[in-house]
This record gives sequence, structure tokens and C-alpha cells, in this order.
Amino acid sequence: MQVAMTGDRIVPMGELEPIYFDRGFYFGDGVYEVVRSYDGRLFALEEHLVRFAENLAAIEISGVDIDQIRSRVQKAFGAAGISNAKIYFHVTRGSAPREHSWDADLKPNFFLTVTELPDWTKIKNEGIAVSSYADLRWQRCDIKSLNLLANVLARSDAAKKGCAEAILVDERGFITEGAGSAFFAIFGQTLQTAPLTANILPSITRKYIIKAGKNIGLKIVEKSLTPQEASNADELLIAVTTQDIVGVVKFDDKDIGVGKPGKYTTLLIKEFRTFTK
Amino acid sequence: MQVAMTGDRIVPMGELEPIYFDRGFYFGDGVYEVVRSYDGRLFALEEHLVRFAENLAAIEISGVDIDQIRSRVQKAFGAAGISNAKIYFHVTRGSAPREHSWDADLKPNFFLTVTELPDWTKIKNEGIAVSSYADLRWQRCDIKSLNLLANVLARSDAAKKGCAEAILVDERGFITEGAGSAFFAIFGQTLQTAPLTANILPSITRKYIIKAGKNIGLKIVEKSLTPQEASNADELLIAVTTQDIVGVVKFDDKDIGVGKPGKYTTLLIKEFRTFTK
Repeated sequence: MQVAMTGDRIVPMGELEPIYFDRGFYFGDGVYEVVRSYDGRLFALEEHLVRFAENLAAIEISGVDIDQIRSRVQKAFGAAGISNAKIYFHVTRGSAPREHSWDADLKPNFFLTVTELPDWTKIKNEGIAVSSYADLRWQRCDIKSLNLLANVLARSDAAKKGCAEAILVDERGFITEGAGSAFFAIFGQTLQTAPLTANILPSITRKYIIKAGKNIGLKIVEKSLTPQEASNADELLIAVTTQDIVGVVKFDDKDIGVGKPGKYTTLLIKEFRTFTK
Repeated sequence: MQVAMTGDRIVPMGELEPIYFDRGFYFGDGVYEVVRSYDGRLFALEEHLVRFAENLAAIEISGVDIDQIRSRVQKAFGAAGISNAKIYFHVTRGSAPREHSWDADLKPNFFLTVTELPDWTKIKNEGIAVSSYADLRWQRCDIKSLNLLANVLARSDAAKKGCAEAILVDERGFITEGAGSAFFAIFGQTLQTAPLTANILPSITRKYIIKAGKNIGLKIVEKSLTPQEASNADELLIAVTTQDIVGVVKFDDKDIGVGKPGKYTTLLIKEFRTFTK
């Protein structure tokens, strides 16, 4: 008799719910998105859905109806009634006995949560410290997949150093992005970030920050930078859906700017906020 | 109210079972092992447990009692009563709201299955075809983690080409290992495989194949090889816990040897079998 065991409980295999056989578990075989709302309105949902569809295609998960995903996001957001909400959702390839290959008729699994975002005022006013860490991730970081162990280990290293984010550095010595964020430097009136040709996620917040940068008169340069260059920037900032822009005041123990989020970071935060209204 | 959604069902977050919040899902944040039995006897369980403990430590999962894992494996194997069984088990960091960082008191989750192995006679007699594929995996493939999407995509590519396994080739042009196996070539009386310094898993079957090779008089060379070199080998074979040794008769459409598992492959299979009795 084929059996399964969860903790100390042994059960016949057939009695376990399909969730236990989800390929998300066995292989991280799925893709995800995080969307947020500002004051009761979802921000950039369509862009997230477009990227989600591209990511599903990239890992060959078919049979997912994006209209249905949109409708589920809206329904769950409505049911939660949270005005500043974080909406996480993923689709995995489905539930099946563990085997790398999959059957063509496997049905994908959908999961979503709506949670309340904390008030970021303090962190936005004070900024955060970040530390660099080796980018050990796989070579398809343009895909927002559930294979995130390298990111978890990087963030753990940062936490041990009292830092809020790990900034990943590839084998050639260039910064790719943060463990869970995009990364920007400001030199004079220039806003610099890695090009999308690097092994990084096409971040939606990144796109809006570039737009905000142009709006406030910054020159945009998409070029990889080294930790050495970053630590000499006038301002540094990270971009992440849940927090949009957060200033970086310390990079690997070196103070950045005047020890609080800089002038342009503050202007970018204000400009970004106009997109979300 | 914070809510979750599985498929079309919306529920208050607190009503979902912890399995839905397992970090194995969100991040592939766990490590696994596959052990098998031969005719009612578990093979190399201790070696698998040693590696499992090392892998838990490598990703900083603490609080797992290896004696308890051993006891669970033995209990489940006994309960199943399958003589040629495949035992899969994993430990994830635990269940918690999705956040890269984790609390020190998070309790790891254990999951195990015991399934019946198919009869490999035919595949062992006939051998398999394999195809090469880019090694897109992360840079800690010495850790047997749940981040296996690159392996899944490689195996999918192989399947489309009518092949049973994908042989991964790194950026420098060298073979690392198979998507789910170790890889060996035989040239004359030399058995060659990548050294453990490459980005590969310290395979337990690999260790026993090297031992078997020595026993039958083969010279062992631990040195990376290119696809070009592999396709000119006298014999090729893969090593995987569930099947031990399987001969490769085709590499990227090029016939290897005489189109069936070679002389030394057959001798290695026989020699390996003596270890499992």
C-alpha cells in the first residue's frame, strides 16, 4: 500500500488532499505576482496580469485564463475590504505524483492571499540599511518563479547584519537587483539602474520609477553598477510593489548621503504617488 | 478581514490549514531526499540521512532531529510493506505568512511518501536516449533543495526530443550532471565523471558507482567533459537512486557504442547490485 506521512501521521496516499501533491512544493513549479492597493484602488493590475501571463508561458503552464485570474483578484480584494492591501497570488502546474515530467492534461492550481500592508511612514522617513551578497540565483530571474531559496538565504544574511535588504552581486562583480526589490542609484541628477538585459526581473515598480524620474527632470541611465560605485552614490533606493520606493541610507556599513533618504528619493516618492491616485 | 483563495473559494485566512502557508510553496524553502529499497531492504539510508542533515544546515533549517527522521522513514516503509519502494521525503522551514525572513521559533514541516518502483528490466536492457540542455540552475546545486524548476524545464525539453533525461551543460561548455541524475562516460577502461567541485550534487549512487568501477578494474577519472567528448565515449550511463545505473545509447541523436548498454555498464550494474543485498 502506497502511503504518505505528514509529521508523524501515516495515511494511505489516496486519502491526502491534492495540495500535498502540488508541484509548487516538489519543484517550485509555478509563478507568482504581488499586487497592492492604495486607498482602496488596485495599482497596475493589468501590467501584473500581462507579466503573469508571460511567466506562465515561459515555464510552459497552459490552460490558465487571465480574465479569470483578474476576476478572482478583484473578488478577493472586494471580499477583504482592506484599503491598503497586499495581494499575493500564484499558479502552480498542478497536483500529481512527484515526477519531473508532467501530463499534458494536468490542471494548474491557483492560490491567493489578501493581507493588510503595514504603515510604511517611519521606514520611508528613515530609510533602510542594505548589504551586498552573492547572486546565487538561477539564470532565468526574468521569470517570477517560486524558486526563491537563493533570495531567502540572501535576505537571511542581510538580517544578520541588521539590514532590511540584500543587494545581489553577480559573478562579474555587478549588482543585479535586491533579493526582493529593484535597485537604483542617483549620481547628481542621474538615476541609474541595471538594464533589463541583466539577469533581473522586469519590475513594474522599476518602470514607474523611471517614469517618475523623467517627470522630475532626472537623466535615466540603464547600466549595471558595482558595489563600489553604489557606495559612492549621492542617493540609493530600492523599489518593491508593496512599498514602492524606500531610500537606502547605508550600503555595506557605508553611510549614503546625509544618513536619511535624499532629496531626489523624496521627490520620486511624491511623484510615484501621483500615479497611484 | 484578511482572506485567502484556493481556486474559486474565498476563505478567512485563519481558516486555512498550515500546509497552505508552507514556505516550501512560497520559496521552495526546503530540502529533500529519495531513498529506495531492494527486495525489502532500505539501501544506504544512513548516507542519505547524513547528506540530509548537511543540507538542512546549509540552508539554516535547525531543530530537525535526524533520529526522528530515520524512525519515520522506517515506520512508513514498514507500514507500506512494498519491497521495491521509493521513499521521498522533505523538510521545509515551516508554515508562516509569506515573508523572505523567518522567525527563529518557526517549526519545520515534514512530508514523506512511499511508492512502488516500476520494474526497470526493459529500460535497463535497452538503455535510454539523452539530450543536452543549458544548465540554468542556481549556484548551490550541491544542496538537494526544492528549487528544481530549471531541472523540470530541462526534462521537459528532453521529453519533447523523445529523450528520458536531460544532460546539463554549464556556461563554460562542460557537462555538470543530469536533470535528475549523475552522468558517467567510459573511454576504454576509464570511468569518467565530473568532480564534486563542479556545481553538482554529491550523489550517493555516484559514490557507489565509483566503488563498483574500481571493483571491476576500471580506472576512475573525476574530470568534467564536454558534450562533444561525451558523444565520442565508448559507453555512457546515468546514475540515480531509484534506478541505480541506466545505460545511455544515444546522446543528442548520436548512437553510443553498439546501440545497447555496453559491456562495462552491464558489469557495473551487476557489481552495484552486490552492494544492495
